[in-house]
Amino acid sequence: MLPYKTLIRIDKSSRQAVYLQIACQFISLIRDGLIQPGTYLPGSRVLAELLALHRKTVIAAYDELQAQDWITAIPRKGMMVSLNLPEIKPRSYNNAHHAYAEGPAFPIYEAPSLLLKRNLPTAKLVLNDGFPDARLAPLDDWARECRSIIQRPAYHKYLAFGPAEGNMYLRNQMLKYLADTRGLNIREENVMITRGAQMSIYLAASMVVQKNDNIIVGSPNYFYADLAFEQLGANIIRVPVDDEGIDTDTVEQLCRTKKIKMLYIISHHHHPTTVTLSAERRMKLLEIIRKYKLAVIEDDYDFDFHYSAAPIVPLASADHGGNVIYVGSFTKSLGLSLRIGFMIAPEKFIQKAAALRRLIDIGGDNLVEEALAGMLENGSINRHLKKANKLYWERRDLAGELLIRHLPDAASFRLPQGGMAIWLQFAKHLKIPAIADKAGTFGLSMSYGYHYAYKSKPLNGLRFGFASLNNKELVSVVNILAKAVKP
Amino acid sequence: MLPYKTLIRIDKSSRQAVYLQIACQFISLIRDGLIQPGTYLPGSRVLAELLALHRKTVIAAYDELQAQDWITAIPRKGMMVSLNLPEIKPRSYNNAHHAYAEGPAFPIYEAPSLLLKRNLPTAKLVLNDGFPDARLAPLDDWARECRSIIQRPAYHKYLAFGPAEGNMYLRNQMLKYLADTRGLNIREENVMITRGAQMSIYLAASMVVQKNDNIIVGSPNYFYADLAFEQLGANIIRVPVDDEGIDTDTVEQLCRTKKIKMLYIISHHHHPTTVTLSAERRMKLLEIIRKYKLAVIEDDYDFDFHYSAAPIVPLASADHGGNVIYVGSFTKSLGLSLRIGFMIAPEKFIQKAAALRRLIDIGGDNLVEEALAGMLENGSINRHLKKANKLYWERRDLAGELLIRHLPDAASFRLPQGGMAIWLQFAKHLKIPAIADKAGTFGLSMSYGYHYAYKSKPLNGLRFGFASLNNKELVSVVNILAKAVKP
Repeated sequence: MLPYKTLIRIDKSSRQAVYLQIACQFISLIRDGLIQPGTYLPGSRVLAELLALHRKTVIAAYDELQAQDWITAIPRKGMMVSLNLPEIKPRSYNNAHHAYAEGPAFPIYEAPSLLLKRNLPTAKLVLNDGFPDARLAPLDDWARECRSIIQRPAYHKYLAFGPAEGNMYLRNQMLKYLADTRGLNIREENVMITRGAQMSIYLAASMVVQKNDNIIVGSPNYFYADLAFEQLGANIIRVPVDDEGIDTDTVEQLCRTKKIKMLYIISHHHHPTTVTLSAERRMKLLEIIRKYKLAVIEDDYDFDFHYSAAPIVPLASADHGGNVIYVGSFTKSLGLSLRIGFMIAPEKFIQKAAALRRLIDIGGDNLVEEALAGMLENGSINRHLKKANKLYWERRDLAGELLIRHLPDAASFRLPQGGMAIWLQFAKHLKIPAIADKAGTFGLSMSYGYHYAYKSKPLNGLRFGFASLNNKELVSVVNILAKAVKP
Repeated sequence: MLPYKTLIRIDKSSRQAVYLQIACQFISLIRDGLIQPGTYLPGSRVLAELLALHRKTVIAAYDELQAQDWITAIPRKGMMVSLNLPEIKPRSYNNAHHAYAEGPAFPIYEAPSLLLKRNLPTAKLVLNDGFPDARLAPLDDWARECRSIIQRPAYHKYLAFGPAEGNMYLRNQMLKYLADTRGLNIREENVMITRGAQMSIYLAASMVVQKNDNIIVGSPNYFYADLAFEQLGANIIRVPVDDEGIDTDTVEQLCRTKKIKMLYIISHHHHPTTVTLSAERRMKLLEIIRKYKLAVIEDDYDFDFHYSAAPIVPLASADHGGNVIYVGSFTKSLGLSLRIGFMIAPEKFIQKAAALRRLIDIGGDNLVEEALAGMLENGSINRHLKKANKLYWERRDLAGELLIRHLPDAASFRLPQGGMAIWLQFAKHLKIPAIADKAGTFGLSMSYGYHYAYKSKPLNGLRFGFASLNNKELVSVVNILAKAVKP
């Protein structure tokens, strides 16, 4: 209910009768759009009590409003603001004239952004960019954990508000998880839980990069990371990514000749090209990091998903003097619906990043984080990863076979060692936007591929997200693609 | 399991026997801290398959490691890295020497921050700053909603990934909620769901304020808002807050004489003083906003909690040409464990704020937001607010009586019209840090009160958060305070 007690003001010294004062004020509230057509007014007894008036006065006011057609009595429901108001154009009740229909009058900052032209996502089939299959996500386990947490007697005391660095139980569980999978041996103080890997990238870069600082990224590069670095005013230097990952010779040459503030690297399944950094380049990079005391953001969003080949251990697990800020995510296990990522860094760095994070969103959802910690401890995440890896591996292989069979000349690719997408490069004469438009008419939504080339030269490539498609869907998608590439 | 396939490299051309190569590489992994004492190595069959070797070779390697005391055979469990390693100081297995124990070597940015000196939060009783009672939060309803959402067949398709502006169902439910409670009539395009009110403040200010822009805030002001504005490099002008709210004459005078970019205002229960903006000042402010086309962030975090007096409708509900960016939160209904807030603004503003938000954390938790939308639609939030308001009202009154009875000379206050805290000002000769230290010895954790005066003159005041304390706890807290203020 609206706060009628403050909205309706009675002036007892006025010569206008009180019931008319009430009626007039209701009319102006309706005219101003504060009370919308179809709204029920409070019962006369309730309003009389709120305004400390006799009920008869309120009834008289409502009679007046009804006589003027502003309100209508609806049997057994009460007084409703009329759907057809007596004035054709009350000032702002019309949606087109509400307080936010225009404006603001002041200039608005434009953050770097990219518009993703897409077909309507209402199509039956969607080819995404490398998302997990939400049907597999262990969200039942998660909901069960949540339920059990809120039933703990001490819940309200210890879990209502969490630290900016993240839930302590989750940070503790991360130690075992990172040691077991990545040989990364750290303490709780080195872990910060964030809203997905993106917030880790944003925070980490904010702690290192100032306006006009030189930073190195791959070419092409993950576009959301690029956007964050642009936002910080970084001077972005792009170094080619080939079949072995980023070109470390060029990186070293740049470090020799310029002040380089930071390097952003995706060690496994580079986005968009899915290339994994070779062991040799990895060693070379570690040398460069140590020699030039280079700050590095290592984005290892996809480490948990490996098929035919084992991952290399991250740069972060080697000896780098705390210069590699390691970024990862659980988002791909939780089906994208829950965005939890993490950042690993020296304690001093985490503390300062937490200070920045407090200004942005205070902290995470303690309940959601506690539930994930439980899933790490009870093995639910581990079981999910085993199951998902097996299935995604099969899907990768099937996708590869189907693409070779049905698009032999249209597109080329190399099967990635892991991850959720195949980097599909189309033959020069085939343009992805035209293919996407045609695929749309066959019931497949796919992107135009522009965003992969954000600030790089056009790539005519597409990440074929196989992981979220079951075998039947894979067959349908490739069949549609095959039809769409035909002249 | 660690990726042994890439960690152990066999050189068949080497003159060293393969089993010795394996043993040496394990030793160096243990020395480097990648494999910790207490870790179980993979079974010989598994490792042999991974490395494509005969199992006997692996067994020979394990025998060698065991002979050198690097690993220990644990019956029925397998080969464990020894807890007492043969070398006293392997390079970095010791936690004190892991890769993140020191560093980084590069300078780290310092965000504006405030250190809150507190007693240990392990005390039996905690006096907070105005938090809700998490025991009342309708989290059971929320968990039930989550469960039902993830069981929908179309869940994976429509809910796995959400837009940066927030879940569409929630934005739609917000329309009814805001119209019913605040007379705020808007469209979905005007709503953005954020991670609590703080993210709305951070985003909104980022869209308006650039380095060295003049902005007006109250004195004192909510410290987390101050921190966000400082971070953006704003030139913060502080205007006194008295019993009727911010001094609008001074605001107008400033607008006449300087270029003022933005005003930040808390209309209900100002933080920390709990003052509510008077109806007259509200009208005056609306005049100023229209006349000077002033950008305003209206932080109305506490609108839903009102007791003896009705709230005024927000500035946002009046005619302001889209210049008032309205910020609110559901955090106080959800017991602080789930951080969902919102921002209401013109569509153009929301779109640009969404572009910025994508760089920060891509978007919200679609599942969590969908569940809240269900709770708005099925009345769960409404029922919770009714119950909580009734209870918090009783607690406010009891807290007031207890404070008058037990601290008659030590502290003064005015009962707030709503919200979750009483602004308690201590007599000059009583210093809050000393009181807090003494209270700590009686088992009560409370703050030193420094943060309320962030960048203002010392206040010697404390927000007495009554809402989260039941009657028995209120009695205990006031009794301890009474003992703590005695000389």
